[in-house]
Amino acid sequence: MSSSFKNVIIVGFGLIGSSLALALKSNRPEIEVTAIDRNHEFLQYAIDNKLADAAYDYYDSFISEADLVVLCPPVGQMQNVAEALGPYLTKDIVITDVGSVKQAVIDNVLPSLPYPENFVASHPIAGAEKSGPSAGFATLFENRWAIITPTDQTDLKAIELVTEMWEICGANVDFMEPKHHDLVLAITSHLPHLIAYSIVGTASNLADDLQREVIKYSAGGFRDFTRIAGSDPIMWRDIFIQNKDSVLDVLQRFNEDLSELQKAIRKDKGDFLQEQFTITREIRNAVIDSGQAGRAPYEEK
Amino acid sequence: MSSSFKNVIIVGFGLIGSSLALALKSNRPEIEVTAIDRNHEFLQYAIDNKLADAAYDYYDSFISEADLVVLCPPVGQMQNVAEALGPYLTKDIVITDVGSVKQAVIDNVLPSLPYPENFVASHPIAGAEKSGPSAGFATLFENRWAIITPTDQTDLKAIELVTEMWEICGANVDFMEPKHHDLVLAITSHLPHLIAYSIVGTASNLADDLQREVIKYSAGGFRDFTRIAGSDPIMWRDIFIQNKDSVLDVLQRFNEDLSELQKAIRKDKGDFLQEQFTITREIRNAVIDSGQAGRAPYEEK
Repeated sequence: MSSSFKNVIIVGFGLIGSSLALALKSNRPEIEVTAIDRNHEFLQYAIDNKLADAAYDYYDSFISEADLVVLCPPVGQMQNVAEALGPYLTKDIVITDVGSVKQAVIDNVLPSLPYPENFVASHPIAGAEKSGPSAGFATLFENRWAIITPTDQTDLKAIELVTEMWEICGANVDFMEPKHHDLVLAITSHLPHLIAYSIVGTASNLADDLQREVIKYSAGGFRDFTRIAGSDPIMWRDIFIQNKDSVLDVLQRFNEDLSELQKAIRKDKGDFLQEQFTITREIRNAVIDSGQAGRAPYEEK
Repeated sequence: MSSSFKNVIIVGFGLIGSSLALALKSNRPEIEVTAIDRNHEFLQYAIDNKLADAAYDYYDSFISEADLVVLCPPVGQMQNVAEALGPYLTKDIVITDVGSVKQAVIDNVLPSLPYPENFVASHPIAGAEKSGPSAGFATLFENRWAIITPTDQTDLKAIELVTEMWEICGANVDFMEPKHHDLVLAITSHLPHLIAYSIVGTASNLADDLQREVIKYSAGGFRDFTRIAGSDPIMWRDIFIQNKDSVLDVLQRFNEDLSELQKAIRKDKGDFLQEQFTITREIRNAVIDSGQAGRAPYEEK
C-alpha cells in the first residue's frame, strides 16, 4: 500500500518531528522527509541517522515541492513558522501541526496561509519528558490518539490526507471542536503538568538538607511528579500561555476541590476524605478499563 | 545465617503485612509468622497460601510467645491495636510498626505498652495502590528505604532487632527523628497523594460526557495521577489526619507556589514559567541520579 503523499516537510525536528519522520519512513519507505529547523545539531542528526532526506535552516522554494507540511515547533512559534512558510505554499499542499493547543494555533496560523482551507489542525496525544531528535522513536504514536480539530472552512480532502498520515503512524484518529479539545486537554494534560511543576518547584525551594532528603526518599509519590515536571520547559511555557483560558478555568476548579480536602483534614473529617478517595479509585478503574493504562501487576480492580 | 528472632506476630494482614510475611519466610524459612486480623478472608488467605503458620481474629496469651510484633494496620487503628496487645506483652517482646506517620503513632501506641522502651517505630518506603494480602509480594521491600525513628527512650537492642528485620527483607535502613520523618514524608508522599486525589476528584465532578473524554484521553498526564489516586482510601484518610500539621504546612507552601504560576500564566510571564520549569527539570535529574528512579528509555539528562 502506498500513501497518497510522498514529499513531507517537517518543521521543528525535536522529539515529535523526528518520531513522525521515523514512523512515516518505517511504515512507508517511499516517503521522502525534508527537515526544517534552526538548530544545526538537530539537522545534522536527522541527516546522519537518515531521519530526513534533506535538511534546511531556512525557508525557500523547495517548500513548493511538498505534498504535506507538518508544523512541529513549540506552539508559541507556530505563527512565525506559518509566516515564513506562507509565500511558498501552493493550493496542492496540505498543512497540519502537532501542537498541544488547537484554537490558538488555528488563530495564529491561518492568517499567514494563502490557502487556509488546506490547514488541518491536529494533536497526537503522545510524548515523553525528553526532547530533541535523538529522543525520537518510530512507535511513539502507535495505538495512541491523534485528535483532528477541523473548522467549518477545512477542506475535506485535506482532512482525509492528515487522517491517513496519522493512521500510517499507527495512531487512532478522533475528531473534536478546537475549543473543546483545549478544555479536555487542559484537564487531562495541562493541569497535571502545572501541578507537577508546582509541587516539584515547592521542593526546589526547600533548604538544601531537606531537599536532599526529599530526593532520597522520593519513591513515595514525589518521584512520579518529577517525571512529569522534567518535561520540556519551552514547550510547556507556550502551552500554558496559549491555552490560558482553559488552564485557568480548570485550575480554579482544582483549587476549590483542594481547599475542600484541606478543610476536611483541618477539621478531622475522616468520613468525607474516605468518601472522596473512594470516588477517585473508581476513576482509576475507568482509566484502566478504557485501555489507557495497563493495570500494573500490583493493582487490583 | 539465622535470625535473632523466630516467632513474629503481624497485626493487620494487608499488602504490607502479607509482604513482610513473605519476605521474612522466603529469606529465613525458620521464621514462624502468626497473623492477627479481624478480616476472616485475609486470615484464610494467609493460612491457605502459607503466609502465616497461625491466624487469629482476637488477642490472647499466644501473643506472649512472640519475639517480635509488627503493627501493620492503618495508622488510625494503631492505638486500638496497642491497647489490645498491651496485656499480653512481656519485657522480651520487641514491637515495631510500618505506619507512614511516626510521631502520632508513637504518641498513640506508647501509653498502652507495658515496656515502651521495646517499641521501635519504623516505616518502609514501599507500597502499591493495591491492598489486601493477595497483593503482597516477597520483594516489596528490596532496595527500598526503611526509616527507623527511635526516641531517647528506645532500647538499643530493640533497634538492632528491627534493623535486622528490615535487612532480612532486603531494605536499606536509615534513622530519623519522628517529627522530621513526618515533614519529609509530607513532601515526598502525603502531599503528592493529596494533590492526586484532588485532581482526580476534580475530574469526577465533571459532566458525564466530559468525564468520559477525560478518561479516554488520559494518557497526557492525568493517567499518572489516577494511579496514585487509586490508593487505599482508609489508609490515606488516616495518614492525612494523623500527619495533619505537616501536611497542612507543606500544602500551604504548595498553594503559594501554585498561585505564583497561576499569576504568571494570567499575565503572560513566559520567562518566569520557563525559568521555573528549568529548575524542576534539575530536581528530576537529581532524583534519577539518586537511584530512586530508573531513567526511562525516552528520558534525557
